[in-house]
Amino acid sequence: IMIKIALDVMGGDNAPDSVIEGAIWAAREMKNKCHIVLVGQDNVIHKTLQKYDTKGIKFTIVNATQVVGMHESPSAAFRQKKDSSIAIAIQLQKEGKADAIVSAGNTGLVMATSLLRLGRLKSVHRPAIAAILPTKKGYVTMLDVGANVDSKPLHLLQFAIMGYIYVNYMFNKIRPKVGLLSIGEESSKGNDLTQEVHKLLEKLKEHNLINFIGNVEGRDVLKGKADVVVCDGFVGNIVLKMAESMYEMIMRPLKDFMKGKMRGKIGFMMLKPVFDKLRAQLDYEEYGGAPLLGIKGVSIICHGSSGPRAIMNAIKVAHRYVSEKVNEHIEEQLKLYNEAMK
Amino acid sequence: IMIKIALDVMGGDNAPDSVIEGAIWAAREMKNKCHIVLVGQDNVIHKTLQKYDTKGIKFTIVNATQVVGMHESPSAAFRQKKDSSIAIAIQLQKEGKADAIVSAGNTGLVMATSLLRLGRLKSVHRPAIAAILPTKKGYVTMLDVGANVDSKPLHLLQFAIMGYIYVNYMFNKIRPKVGLLSIGEESSKGNDLTQEVHKLLEKLKEHNLINFIGNVEGRDVLKGKADVVVCDGFVGNIVLKMAESMYEMIMRPLKDFMKGKMRGKIGFMMLKPVFDKLRAQLDYEEYGGAPLLGIKGVSIICHGSSGPRAIMNAIKVAHRYVSEKVNEHIEEQLKLYNEAMK
Repeated sequence: IMIKIALDVMGGDNAPDSVIEGAIWAAREMKNKCHIVLVGQDNVIHKTLQKYDTKGIKFTIVNATQVVGMHESPSAAFRQKKDSSIAIAIQLQKEGKADAIVSAGNTGLVMATSLLRLGRLKSVHRPAIAAILPTKKGYVTMLDVGANVDSKPLHLLQFAIMGYIYVNYMFNKIRPKVGLLSIGEESSKGNDLTQEVHKLLEKLKEHNLINFIGNVEGRDVLKGKADVVVCDGFVGNIVLKMAESMYEMIMRPLKDFMKGKMRGKIGFMMLKPVFDKLRAQLDYEEYGGAPLLGIKGVSIICHGSSGPRAIMNAIKVAHRYVSEKVNEHIEEQLKLYNEAMK
Repeated sequence: IMIKIALDVMGGDNAPDSVIEGAIWAAREMKNKCHIVLVGQDNVIHKTLQKYDTKGIKFTIVNATQVVGMHESPSAAFRQKKDSSIAIAIQLQKEGKADAIVSAGNTGLVMATSLLRLGRLKSVHRPAIAAILPTKKGYVTMLDVGANVDSKPLHLLQFAIMGYIYVNYMFNKIRPKVGLLSIGEESSKGNDLTQEVHKLLEKLKEHNLINFIGNVEGRDVLKGKADVVVCDGFVGNIVLKMAESMYEMIMRPLKDFMKGKMRGKIGFMMLKPVFDKLRAQLDYEEYGGAPLLGIKGVSIICHGSSGPRAIMNAIKVAHRYVSEKVNEHIEEQLKLYNEAMK
């Protein structure tokens, strides 16, 4: 089946070029499996497409006259820019003309528009953004990383279920390990919220609805102790942004030095295997995008600074999300939960 | 004046050797300014001292028969191990036989014993652990990183004042910039707690009691946007431990590769200047220890895996804390605050 993905061409620090280039890469790789709908100012799209070799690729182009800046207020943009690339891309999904959207644009607006236009899945109280981070053993999916603050215990319980299903189908991982982000491993440790959630997740485990492994600490996340890490969006967002800036802080001086004098260049040549491995492992571009879980639709949110590779990978994520029917499985699992709790 | 520092010789993953070695280094460097009291099992201390050249150094040795493991329950150890090195070291401070303690041992026990035996400074509601992290521009002092969870707005307000004073005197920084850890820069962003604290800190700024620069996000912390970053201990602890493990995750494969084949060794030689700089900048051993702010005394908590350099630096931190009379200044500033709010 051909899956249709609406791509916000105007969003992101490197738009439209990186976005269009990513779309071309994805189209070449995924040929008959995926049709990409480019959404944005059509003159800009046509002009940009001319820069690249698009032989044999068919895109659909949908015009959206307005552009939303990365730092514009989402609520103002939602009200005032009804013809933005984000609004139109989501509208296409609502009308069934696209199965998913991918955007590197204003995260708040993608989130709000997805939620308000597409609505929530059955039984879901709060959607959550799930970030995929590299670990020593593979990946960890952490949620929520910013869709919510001051979450209630029931919200985190649902994040756990959604993350469990997501990792199961997207990474083909049977019974992925779910951890609760806290301080201290014992169930008695943590704050009021995590202590309450810990009890709820124990119950879920008893009913065999998730594979809960208990609390995980900050130092355990990147060790790959859990496949899914559950937290409130306030904590998750801070942790994620701090981790990204730390990677930058360590790698930047190395990169600068290696670009500089001859000794730096020689050093880089010598250490290239390990740098390549580190980059493949740690660079967020490999992971493409973060899904907004819990909405009646598929919205993949990319980092503002995404390059073509990140965009291509996000399109692949969107494709798999649709073809694996992740949303249906989330609804099924929540139904099982509701029945178990009756 | 000779400042007396009680050092817990039995605490930490590398105790007693690294601790004793750090004490020797510190004693050599600080000669007539600082007298170190080694607290622990005296046979162990004597035996360890024999391994090193201690010519010209005078230590006082105080026997403590019990040892507390890094993962023992602090509350049980507090009740049952009255003769532990931590209990005795803090007792020395209570009796005026030491001006400060330094420990790389069981953090929870150091915290609880300091609080319960020494008490709180006047007007302080909750003590906080302040971690010192490297940034692009120097250091940032982040508090609380784990003494409290579910903090109230007033607690965070006091953390801000304590951090402001600490950085002022310890880093000789006039009017250090205080930021509130949150998601989003606008005052309206964040969770219920940070929105409330934001208002309180604005008021403090109006009264010229701190230099509040507003919210800082996860990505700003390591950029050095603020000199002091205020947060609840749940968030701070997770962020700190995640950052430490991230440093480890990036540096470990590099180190392993460079120790391996010839090309790794050559690469290391070539890149040595930048690695040295990174290590000096990012390695927590440079920063020694984290003070427990708000107690009627001086407790410097070291990382469990501290080596001699970290111990030496923690002793220097303790020394400066005492000689700069940080606690008196904290009480003065809280008094000014109380008067301003009347």
